Amino acid sequence: MVATSPLVNIYPLSSYTFGTKEPKMEKDTSVADRLARMKVNYMKEGMRTSVEAILLVQEHNHPHILLLQIGNTFCKLPGGRLKPGENEIEGLKRKLSSKLAANQPSLQPDWQIGECVAIWWRPNFETIMYPYCPPHITKPKECKKLFIVHLSEREYFAVPKNLKLLAVPLFELYDNVQRYGPVISTIPQQLSRFQFNMINS
Amino acid sequence: MVATSPLVNIYPLSSYTFGTKEPKMEKDTSVADRLARMKVNYMKEGMRTSVEAILLVQEHNHPHILLLQIGNTFCKLPGGRLKPGENEIEGLKRKLSSKLAANQPSLQPDWQIGECVAIWWRPNFETIMYPYCPPHITKPKECKKLFIVHLSEREYFAVPKNLKLLAVPLFELYDNVQRYGPVISTIPQQLSRFQFNMINS
Repeated sequence: MVATSPLVNIYPLSSYTFGTKEPKMEKDTSVADRLARMKVNYMKEGMRTSVEAILLVQEHNHPHILLLQIGNTFCKLPGGRLKPGENEIEGLKRKLSSKLAANQPSLQPDWQIGECVAIWWRPNFETIMYPYCPPHITKPKECKKLFIVHLSEREYFAVPKNLKLLAVPLFELYDNVQRYGPVISTIPQQLSRFQFNMINS
Repeated sequence: MVATSPLVNIYPLSSYTFGTKEPKMEKDTSVADRLARMKVNYMKEGMRTSVEAILLVQEHNHPHILLLQIGNTFCKLPGGRLKPGENEIEGLKRKLSSKLAANQPSLQPDWQIGECVAIWWRPNFETIMYPYCPPHITKPKECKKLFIVHLSEREYFAVPKNLKLLAVPLFELYDNVQRYGPVISTIPQQLSRFQFNMINS
């Protein structure tokens, strides 16, 4: 029953190569649009399941997380909504390739989907989510799962031209709900049980 | 590499029996005393390692955590400091028996120490802790590990007379750093990846 701390190898940011590709526009231009689309999809397909990736790199031996920045302020994890019935792991690989991989098949990273570190629930067609399904909620509207994705020592990322890819240190995310929201700002706590193997190559 | 959500059986609060035993007084009467004693111990023994237990029960099918309340406001998880060189699992069992078990050996619960869910670091002789070892800190003063402890269907707990044992729902802990502090208030996020099997017997 006892688990030792799982190990995560983390390579320097400088070991990765970053290019650009065609823009991937957001489907919605406002929060209201987004919630309305969510409702329409719920009527057709039932609860939305989304999967997001925690990609780790290091600088100065401190872990950093790769975030996609839209415009000047809003940051999100790479990932997205599963198709109805789609496998979580395969769906996350599909989303990662869509958001971060070059279009040439030979340059696709071999995405190693690792541990699920958090699950968030959306009880209503509203922005607020909880790390549990609240009491009396029998039909949650979305379930969002965060996975560690283990990167290889070398990768090529192609970032859509309308987005910026940022490496944000854990100490910047921690306790910073104002800037990053409740899901991303508690990633440091959710990663605390892991043993990070910082590789300086 | 992919782990499915680990399962935790949770039994109703009503399936457990609670008695009392002799008081277990806090070693320190103020935060300043506590930090001073920490410093003295650090000089003798090096970094302090402490272990704490997350004991889960359910009411109305929602998970609750057992907390020890000292006085009218301060709450803590059962657990405490390891002796130098002591094994984490054995040390946590010793602390749980000291804080929550009857003195008769026949009434001792069979503590099933489960997954480590969080690790917190104290960089200095101060109250603030972080869920990572901050950059440039080479000699942290304390490492605190939180473990899930899997309870059996029936247990007898003996609570020291100067303490109260409370079952606090996850929705009360969540986002409530003012009342419970940063370590306890983020337990809901750290437990979110688990699949809870609510047993109503």
